[in-house]
Parts: sequence; C-alpha cells; structure tokens
Amino acid sequence: MHRVIVLGAGLVGNVIARDLHKDDSIVVVVADINKERLDYLHQAYGLSVIQLDLGKERELEEIIKDFDLVIGAVPGFMGFETLERVIKCGKNIVDISFFEEDPFQLDDLAKRHGVTAIIDAGVAPGLSNLIAGYEFNSLDEMSEFECYVGGLPKERVLPFEYKAPFSPVDVIEEYTRDARMVEDGRIVVKPALSEPEILYFQGIGSLEAFNTDGLRTLLKTLKVPFMKEKTLRYPGHIEKIKLLKDAGFLSTKPIRIGETEITPIEFTSKILIDNWKLKKGEEDFTVMRVIVRGKKQGENLTITYELYDEYDREEEVLSMARTTGFTCTAIARLVLSGKIKQKGIIPPEKIGMNADVFRRIIEELRKRKIALHVIERKEE
Amino acid sequence: MHRVIVLGAGLVGNVIARDLHKDDSIVVVVADINKERLDYLHQAYGLSVIQLDLGKERELEEIIKDFDLVIGAVPGFMGFETLERVIKCGKNIVDISFFEEDPFQLDDLAKRHGVTAIIDAGVAPGLSNLIAGYEFNSLDEMSEFECYVGGLPKERVLPFEYKAPFSPVDVIEEYTRDARMVEDGRIVVKPALSEPEILYFQGIGSLEAFNTDGLRTLLKTLKVPFMKEKTLRYPGHIEKIKLLKDAGFLSTKPIRIGETEITPIEFTSKILIDNWKLKKGEEDFTVMRVIVRGKKQGENLTITYELYDEYDREEEVLSMARTTGFTCTAIARLVLSGKIKQKGIIPPEKIGMNADVFRRIIEELRKRKIALHVIERKEE
Repeated sequence: MHRVIVLGAGLVGNVIARDLHKDDSIVVVVADINKERLDYLHQAYGLSVIQLDLGKERELEEIIKDFDLVIGAVPGFMGFETLERVIKCGKNIVDISFFEEDPFQLDDLAKRHGVTAIIDAGVAPGLSNLIAGYEFNSLDEMSEFECYVGGLPKERVLPFEYKAPFSPVDVIEEYTRDARMVEDGRIVVKPALSEPEILYFQGIGSLEAFNTDGLRTLLKTLKVPFMKEKTLRYPGHIEKIKLLKDAGFLSTKPIRIGETEITPIEFTSKILIDNWKLKKGEEDFTVMRVIVRGKKQGENLTITYELYDEYDREEEVLSMARTTGFTCTAIARLVLSGKIKQKGIIPPEKIGMNADVFRRIIEELRKRKIALHVIERKEE
Repeated sequence: MHRVIVLGAGLVGNVIARDLHKDDSIVVVVADINKERLDYLHQAYGLSVIQLDLGKERELEEIIKDFDLVIGAVPGFMGFETLERVIKCGKNIVDISFFEEDPFQLDDLAKRHGVTAIIDAGVAPGLSNLIAGYEFNSLDEMSEFECYVGGLPKERVLPFEYKAPFSPVDVIEEYTRDARMVEDGRIVVKPALSEPEILYFQGIGSLEAFNTDGLRTLLKTLKVPFMKEKTLRYPGHIEKIKLLKDAGFLSTKPIRIGETEITPIEFTSKILIDNWKLKKGEEDFTVMRVIVRGKKQGENLTITYELYDEYDREEEVLSMARTTGFTCTAIARLVLSGKIKQKGIIPPEKIGMNADVFRRIIEELRKRKIALHVIERKEE
C-alpha cells in the first residue's frame, strides 16, 4: 500500500487526488487550507482530507512524515519554498506548482537527502519536456525542438476570445515576461508576444502562436541548437493584449488613487476578471504541437506530436486540469513503483530519456483519453 | 470703444482674448483663477487681467457690470451656471463652454433680460451650425445635413494615433454617450462609436468616421428630415476604443481598491493621460466636412463645405483653438457692431440664417487663414 499526500486541492490538485484515489494500491490524503474544497472532495469522492495552512512550518513537516510520496500542487508563489521543505523531510515529490525560481538551486539538497524531486510535471511544461527527452535520446542528433501549446475556451467570446480558470494576473504575467529561446546553441531573449504566426490545427482551425518564456529547464538540460516555445490563442488575441501593453495598461509602475497606490496591471486584472473567467460548466480544450527535428541513422527526420484534449462533461473536469493532472499522476505512479529512481531535481526531460518510462506515461494518458498523435517524416 | 470680458484663460479663451485685443476699438479683460496663465497673457501680450474665482457669486456679478459683452470660455461643467449668471446681469454673451445641459431652459430668462446669449460658438458645434442655418434659409427645402469633424495630431503615434490638449476623460465621454441623429424626421438614438466608415480627405488621406452626439441644438431648431454628426479619427482608433469599452475599461461602475473606490473610466483616463497628451509644440489639425442636400428652384443640390486648418507655428496656437476661438470672435464682433440683435438663447444656426452675417463670419475666418471650400453639385 502506497501513501500519497496531495498538497493543494485547487483545480489540478483536486483532479490528481481523485485519479490516484481510484487506485486500490494507493491511499490518498489531500491537504489544503480551504475547508469548502476539502469537504467537497470528502463528501463527493470519499477522499481523506486534512485542513492545513501550508505556510506554517511545523505542521507540514509533521504530517508528511507518514507518506511515501508528496504531490506539490500549491500556487506558484508558494511552490519553491514548499518543495524545499519537502526535500528537507527526505520525501519524494512530484510537483506542478510551476514556480518561477530556478529549481536546480535545490539539486544538491535533494541529492543529499536522497530525494527524487520531479518538477514541472504538467502538460507544458511537463509532457512537452518528456517528449523532448525521449526524442533527444532516440535520435542520433537533435537539431530542433519547437513547442506550441494553449488552453482555450471552446466558446469564442469577443473581444478577447479567451478564458482561464485562474486569475488574469497570471495570464498577463506570461504576456509581459521576456521569452528565452535557443538559436544556434545560444540563449536569445525575445520580447513577450513577439513573432506572431498563424498555424492550422485540424478540427480547431487557425490559431495564433507567439513567443512566451516556456522552455524553462530545457534551456539548461538539453544541448539542442534551436529550441522555441510559443503560446497558442485564437487569432487577434495578441494584438489586443499588445494594445493594452502599449497603452500602459500592463505597467507595473504604481499609480496613486486617493490614499492608495495600485499598478495598472493589477487594475487591468480586476477589470478583466469577469471577462476572462471560465465559469462552472464552461468548456475548454488543450492543444499542443511539438515538433522535433534531427538525424537518425543518417536520415533527417521531422517528428510531430499533436495533442488535443477537451473538457470532460461526465466528470466535469477542465481539459487544462486533465492534461496537467494526469501527466502528474502517471509520473507519480512510476515513482511509487520504483521505475523512476534518479535522485535530485529531475525535470521531465530526464524521465523521458528512459524510453520504457516514456511509453508507460503515454499509455497512462491514453487510458484517460488523452491521445498523442505522432507523425514521423523523412526529409529529403 | 467696446469693453469685452473673457471668462476663462484656457487654451481657447487665451486665443479669443489675444484676437479681440488686436482690435483698436475693443478693450479686453481676461478673468481666470489661474495666476500663471494671467501673468503670461499680461506679460506676453499686454492684456488686462483679473484673477477671479468664477465660482464665487458676488465677484463675477460685480465685475461684469462694466462690460458690453461677455465671452464664456469656462470648462464645460461650469458653463451652464456661468451663462445663467451672466444673463441675470443683463449682459450679452458669446459662449464656447459646450456644456451638457439644455441651453433653451434659459431662453425665457434671456428674453426677459433682453440678452443676446449665443451658445456653442465654436467650430463644431459652431461653424457647422452656421452653415446649417445659412443653407436652411437659402435652399427652398433642405433634406439632409451631415457633419464630419475631427481634431487630430499631425504625427501619428501608435497605438491610438490620437492626442488632445484636454483630459482623456472628456474625449472618452464622447465615446460613451449615445448619439442622437435624425432619420425620416425622427430623433433616433444610436450607440456611441457605431456605424464606422472610411472617408477620404485630400492632403490627409483616409480617416474613419463614427457616430457621436454632436447635433445638439440642431435636433430642436431645424426641421430637416435627415441629420447626422460623426467624429473623425485615424483609421483603427475606434476599434481600439471599442476593445477597451467591451473589456470594461470605460465602465462607470466603481471598483474597490483597498480603501478607495475608482471607476474604470477614471483609471483608464489616468493611464492614457501621457499617451494622449498633446505636448507643447506638438502640432494638430482640424478637418471638417459638412454636406447639405436639398432643393432650390426645382433642382436637387448637394453642397459640400470642407475646412482644413493647421497648428499655427508662428503664434504657437493649436488649430483646435484657432478654429473654435476665431469663430467665437467673429460672432462677438458682430454682436458688438449690432449686426446680431436677436434676444434669447441663440444657437449659431439662427445667426447663419442671416446671409449677410454668415458671409461676414466666413470673411473673418478667411482673414485668419481658415478657409472653407464649397462645392455645389447639381444632382440629376
């Protein structure tokens, strides 16, 4: 019997806990500060829950003692600190908090404690990294990696044709941060929202891709001369965001309003919150295209992975939570079963390099109706 | 010798005072609360000035006693009240405060006091109304009146390609108020920014026109079955404003920020204030096209008036101030010389109905290099 504690009962933590709970060989406990969320998980799905302020040092350390594996599903701003604390307890962790800090700062610590700490275990980053690692190992030489990914509402409502289950601040953050890419083996920094291009996706139609800072660990871990990551939105979205940006609505320089100060970006986020809110029952989908180019046995190959996933009406689960959560649980199961043994900070590309592990993850996703379509083309 | 007092030494008041001051037969005094503005007018142009809080009842009444004519050039929100006070003093007034209230509420009062109170004495409203009145009288039957007008910066800077010498709040107000038009003899209300169309202007190129609520007094005074007014901007401007509007940035519903409340429209105005600011030395132009259709001696005529005016580099005066101010001073001179004698609230269309008066105003504008080009075309 494996004992797993899920830290955070948010949109994705919730789905992770429910998925692991279906497994007879796993005992799941969910910890969160929000009693309502916990009551719901307990009553609707019979999950064991602990109400816990994850910010309070002692309690967390006390509680995780009894578990074999920790799932980190806390908000991004708490992610790094939580990871560090779990590592110090000597517990393995699979993390989807997508924190901003450099995870490799904790690599030594994790090794010293004999901990397997898998970070960025979502869809992108996550599944995209698994593919990168898998292909990096199976090709003789990998020359290019491109990732296009987006989570979008099925209904397109003007003006933005965009909705998300989280705060606009987090989305806008993606729109304002410089994007790091790899060109000719060097990291180059491009402006957020730059290099827009229209791409076609079967069954969806045209989407617009633009540079975002999503390569994360890949910038350090894989020696591939060309790597880029772009976010997908319905065409026209970026132009509207650019207007807000150019006009000063996304500025982080505070403006004084009476006695208070507020930054335009905070204010803008407040204004957009209703417009961008993905309400209960509103359906989303996830689309990802990963293109890898390289050589194998003297041939030039282009391998394209396509993922399309939708809101699950039966389970009432957003696609964004499905694709992130199920990648995480697939990895968690492999850690529990001893198939992933590396110690230290392990980004998913390191896991993907093991072809058997990669195939098992893909198989777990397939069982949950998340299918990856792969097309391999030999170039002249 | 005529004695004229100009209430308000703002952008336009300033130009009005300087223009009247050039006339040997007129003594001009400028009243304003702002000492800096007054000092400048006194030192640079030798104008007599009075520092005065125009909001304080007694002082204004005391001071205007000694004048033959008052020019009302106060901010819009003070316009109506100031007009009422001047009328009660029995003084003639030419007003360019463009207040929102219905001026005809003061018609009886003005008649009782034997006052000529000419309102909306600018370019549009103002000159456009003079044309409407003139043509209404010279045609046997007027079927249509259209006015397209805009004040724009010469330099087109993205994203908005718009700048103004006044606060964004006042501009945005135009973009949010419903627009009243006349169709088939009935007043119809259309949404602000509606019915955009691209028009060509020689020497400028393409501009975009959209509905605004600029017919004002014409809605009551002229029985013309079709009348419309549209504002001109560089193409693309409206779409960007619409985005802000649709996304909630122009809402007047307050949002709570800490201890303070602020409306999105106020906040947006604060954000745009730098972007939209027409800075000292930046050049503007005014463009207006008035199209009148009707019958004369059995023939169907289309008469088009076109005005184009630019920033005056020598005098460092914005075109917007020139076109508004010089229409006002032309009318003021005709009141002083006894050519305009009607009592009550007199909108410019009532003045334009007198062909001699209309031609004199056009001649005054021409002397100041504001030329109206008129094309009369006979329709089949």
